[in-house]
Amino acid sequence: MRRYWIPAFFSSELPHPDCPPIRVGLLGEQLVAFRDSEGRVGLVDEFCAHRGASLFFGRNEECGLRCVYHGWKYDVEGHCIDMPSEPPESNFKHKIRLTAYPCRERGGLVWTYMGPPERMPGLPELEWAIVPEGHRYISKRIQDCNYLQAMEGGIDSSHVSFLHRGDVRVFSARLTRDTAPRFEVHRTAYGLLIGARREWDAETYYWRITQWLMPWYTMIPRFEERPIGGHAWVPIDDEHCWAWSIHWHPDRPLTDAERDDFVGQRRDIHPELIPGTFRPVANKDNDYLIDRELQRSGRSFTGIKSIGIQDQAVQESQGPRFDRTKEHLGTSDTAIINARKRLLEAVEAVAAGQDPPGLDPATHRVRSAGLFLPKTVPFDEGAGDGLLARSPAYELITA
Amino acid sequence: MRRYWIPAFFSSELPHPDCPPIRVGLLGEQLVAFRDSEGRVGLVDEFCAHRGASLFFGRNEECGLRCVYHGWKYDVEGHCIDMPSEPPESNFKHKIRLTAYPCRERGGLVWTYMGPPERMPGLPELEWAIVPEGHRYISKRIQDCNYLQAMEGGIDSSHVSFLHRGDVRVFSARLTRDTAPRFEVHRTAYGLLIGARREWDAETYYWRITQWLMPWYTMIPRFEERPIGGHAWVPIDDEHCWAWSIHWHPDRPLTDAERDDFVGQRRDIHPELIPGTFRPVANKDNDYLIDRELQRSGRSFTGIKSIGIQDQAVQESQGPRFDRTKEHLGTSDTAIINARKRLLEAVEAVAAGQDPPGLDPATHRVRSAGLFLPKTVPFDEGAGDGLLARSPAYELITA
Amino acid sequence: MRRYWIPAFFSSELPHPDCPPIRVGLLGEQLVAFRDSEGRVGLVDEFCAHRGASLFFGRNEECGLRCVYHGWKYDVEGHCIDMPSEPPESNFKHKIRLTAYPCRERGGLVWTYMGPPERMPGLPELEWAIVPEGHRYISKRIQDCNYLQAMEGGIDSSHVSFLHRGDVRVFSARLTRDTAPRFEVHRTAYGLLIGARREWDAETYYWRITQWLMPWYTMIPRFEERPIGGHAWVPIDDEHCWAWSIHWHPDRPLTDAERDDFVGQRRDIHPELIPGTFRPVANKDNDYLIDRELQRSGRSFTGIKSIGIQDQAVQESQGPRFDRTKEHLGTSDTAIINARKRLLEAVEAVAAGQDPPGLDPATHRVRSAGLFLPKTVPFDEGAGDGLLARSPAYELITA
Repeated sequence: MRRYWIPAFFSSELPHPDCPPIRVGLLGEQLVAFRDSEGRVGLVDEFCAHRGASLFFGRNEECGLRCVYHGWKYDVEGHCIDMPSEPPESNFKHKIRLTAYPCRERGGLVWTYMGPPERMPGLPELEWAIVPEGHRYISKRIQDCNYLQAMEGGIDSSHVSFLHRGDVRVFSARLTRDTAPRFEVHRTAYGLLIGARREWDAETYYWRITQWLMPWYTMIPRFEERPIGGHAWVPIDDEHCWAWSIHWHPDRPLTDAERDDFVGQRRDIHPELIPGTFRPVANKDNDYLIDRELQRSGRSFTGIKSIGIQDQAVQESQGPRFDRTKEHLGTSDTAIINARKRLLEAVEAVAAGQDPPGLDPATHRVRSAGLFLPKTVPFDEGAGDGLLARSPAYELITA
Repeated sequence: MRRYWIPAFFSSELPHPDCPPIRVGLLGEQLVAFRDSEGRVGLVDEFCAHRGASLFFGRNEECGLRCVYHGWKYDVEGHCIDMPSEPPESNFKHKIRLTAYPCRERGGLVWTYMGPPERMPGLPELEWAIVPEGHRYISKRIQDCNYLQAMEGGIDSSHVSFLHRGDVRVFSARLTRDTAPRFEVHRTAYGLLIGARREWDAETYYWRITQWLMPWYTMIPRFEERPIGGHAWVPIDDEHCWAWSIHWHPDRPLTDAERDDFVGQRRDIHPELIPGTFRPVANKDNDYLIDRELQRSGRSFTGIKSIGIQDQAVQESQGPRFDRTKEHLGTSDTAIINARKRLLEAVEAVAAGQDPPGLDPATHRVRSAGLFLPKTVPFDEGAGDGLLARSPAYELITA
Repeated sequence: MRRYWIPAFFSSELPHPDCPPIRVGLLGEQLVAFRDSEGRVGLVDEFCAHRGASLFFGRNEECGLRCVYHGWKYDVEGHCIDMPSEPPESNFKHKIRLTAYPCRERGGLVWTYMGPPERMPGLPELEWAIVPEGHRYISKRIQDCNYLQAMEGGIDSSHVSFLHRGDVRVFSARLTRDTAPRFEVHRTAYGLLIGARREWDAETYYWRITQWLMPWYTMIPRFEERPIGGHAWVPIDDEHCWAWSIHWHPDRPLTDAERDDFVGQRRDIHPELIPGTFRPVANKDNDYLIDRELQRSGRSFTGIKSIGIQDQAVQESQGPRFDRTKEHLGTSDTAIINARKRLLEAVEAVAAGQDPPGLDPATHRVRSAGLFLPKTVPFDEGAGDGLLARSPAYELITA
């Protein structure tokens, strides 16, 4: 995972130069992020190299973050640039450097790279990160389980027919007429291309086509010309992850009605959060506010409101780190089985000194689809250019 | 313990067919219980065999509990009876079965048996479980300690002279004139018959006689013709147990005044619970709402209100699993010493392929007593038929 | 640590004979303290020797603390003096004794000694403990970290120039003109005499002189004729400590204005506590109520209100037990390095059967100082008798 750029936090969490620092948990590390006087973003070890006080309490001033305990000050690259508690002749500060990870901003997010500097790939070119700000809506929540459990939900077309029944209203017939999709999975440069087909009529399949971009990006099959949904599932540690939820329209700004839908009653994949936190109001301590009458009525399969919380409920209910010796996988789990295989292969490749798949930003220019195809037509052929991300905004990227 | 029927939960926790399922913790296992469309009760592994989502969030419908993640459905015996996410030809569902335990209803409770099916004994014939509903009042609370600590309080006649002084008002003279009871303990088919005698006058002992029915049933010595009190102490796991508290009258319905006593200020052994939970309002996080002034006044020995919470306070204060190398047992602990001995022997018997004691329901037809006897009369002889449960309701049981 | 008298709790926590007992955590032990009918203070194992019920719920009456479970009663020395649940002939009570530690009262505190009785030293003669009650103000708070992290803050003159900038207003110029103090550390009978000098002008140093009295007493360098501040940092267990904060005036009662300062807005080193607890209102769960605007304004270096909470914030932020392999010590840490050395030597001395330093009460009669000295004058010589505690109250001590 250290070989990939990581969506770390919203740019807006550090709204202006010298604003207060924030704590950031990523890949099991405790970090602190700050935006310096010149607007540069730093992401460094949370704890001062001197005696370990948290830099979260630090003063962000004059191009550096200063520990409040003894005034040691660090720049965005982790260099100790001031050590006023030591006499000048000690020349001690030049020996001190915090762990620091490079940061870039794109698509409203700060991205970081925690791997070996000489192997840093290009910044991801996922379509949602490239489109203009007005075309995009992103939310983030903490999920109390391993990232893999969460990510597996994102490539599991099968659960949509059940877990989200009643909530994915617009295309429900497409999902309920046949609830046992067959999967075709192709290995690609970025990860997997996954086609899940359902019987529609004698001549036709309904295909839900999605890509898994290594190591944690998933997309929801698009419904006609509507905004596309997607996720990034990023490990905080082995038992917690960031669940990023994204909607974007490749060609036009989101409408007010679309935005209202993400923050109002329905919310789709976007959570209602406890103010000042990224923890959902409906969470495991309150059984996700399950409404048994609503569940019983059939208007919602779960009685839990909003798609994102439905996912969170079942994924967290597997436990913080699900013991997979207890699972019984079927044909509906074909995509999951393939993704695990790719991840294990990638680990082996890295251990052998090679690059894992999915590093080349050009391969990120893909897009999900949902469409009816004659049974005789292979899904990738039928989808054709529909699987290519072609937002005009790509022209804005400067190499 | 798996060789005995276990009082698992109230029948009323599953009030009608297809009502919402409940979580049940027993003997270290996480289970979920539901009542199917035909009124049958199922008690199965909480987690779906597919990918481990909790069936607590499941849909209880059409004679089965359906997982909301992918729609797998289980009957009360744990058989997977529907698997709509898989194509019919996979025939996968016939290979899937959840751990499931048989359930029976008696005395307002659901009982389960978690042992080897071929050794299932008859359903317990404890008098409180047999009498008509109107004769009985039962409550339940969670206690944050090992079941054995709790159970030992139930066979420890000695503590009543202290812990409950001021609260067991009606017969206080019988308990305070002599505070150092001598114990006589007889081994019986069901467990132990325990006589604790106190000096009353030159010729007379006051005897408190109770039975311990293996592995967790205790009774409070009866006071004249009043309702009898009792408990069942059932392990949730090594550090938590269900404390069931029971009052029943063998021969007549409980009066309104008696019932009021269990739910009002005094409450006797019955706790006031935090609504929606089985956790008492007075608990270890608030020092059981101890009232030091009340304690000081002498009207209550502890300053803690209600007998059940007094027991909970001292038993939990021993810690979640008391280190028994630190205890100093005296003659007042004779019953406890004997009970531990029987438990260890029972463990050895089961390990050797034999049956533990107390399985035969006919042996459960016993009843506690409290009575004055001449010093020359052995307590079991003096009590005679008073120790036999003879509720007319026994006639209602059909073999 | 068991070889030293320990400040255990306020005398006022046991305000009168036979008042309710309190729980006391010290050196990893769970204890209960009570004041008996004669006013004597007992400090004994929290758990009854019989079956381990907590004596916190006990009845404090007639010269002993009585367990509410079976009435066993203990005197202040831990002897079981009544065992009413046992017949008199068993003579069992004479074999039972709880762990008990001797207690003395001085300076508004109860002190205890947890070491070998034959090696008990004289009661400490710290000046703050000797002066009349009106000359003294003491507070206490729980800190969620190892005592050593906390104590190291107390001998670290360097951090005052940063952490407390804006709050130690009266002498700020003395602390900010030179922020890199040089340390001179002398080994003494009581622990360490620490001089930290700052450049003032071409001929003059500003010296902050303080003593570390083993194993946990520190003092704040005095400012002119004002009250002196100090601390005792006492381990509850490896991850929690009592932070005692003290102000005293050697020669006169504290004025109302001075007292107001300790309980009002500013508070100095004294915390605002959650009522009924020793936990500060500003604590790690609320990021010490850091006010980022106040921090940004420069009026406070941290944005955290009151000196004591500033210390608590950085010390707890190091973690409950800081991994010292991660620290980078400089010349500003000279006092800390020396203190650790003395502690390790003391451990070795005790292991070799010798006495650790600092046991002789006569050596406790020292006092901190802050003063300007010509550069040519050694600090201990320049301070002279100013480092001796000479409160007239010493005459009141009777050997």
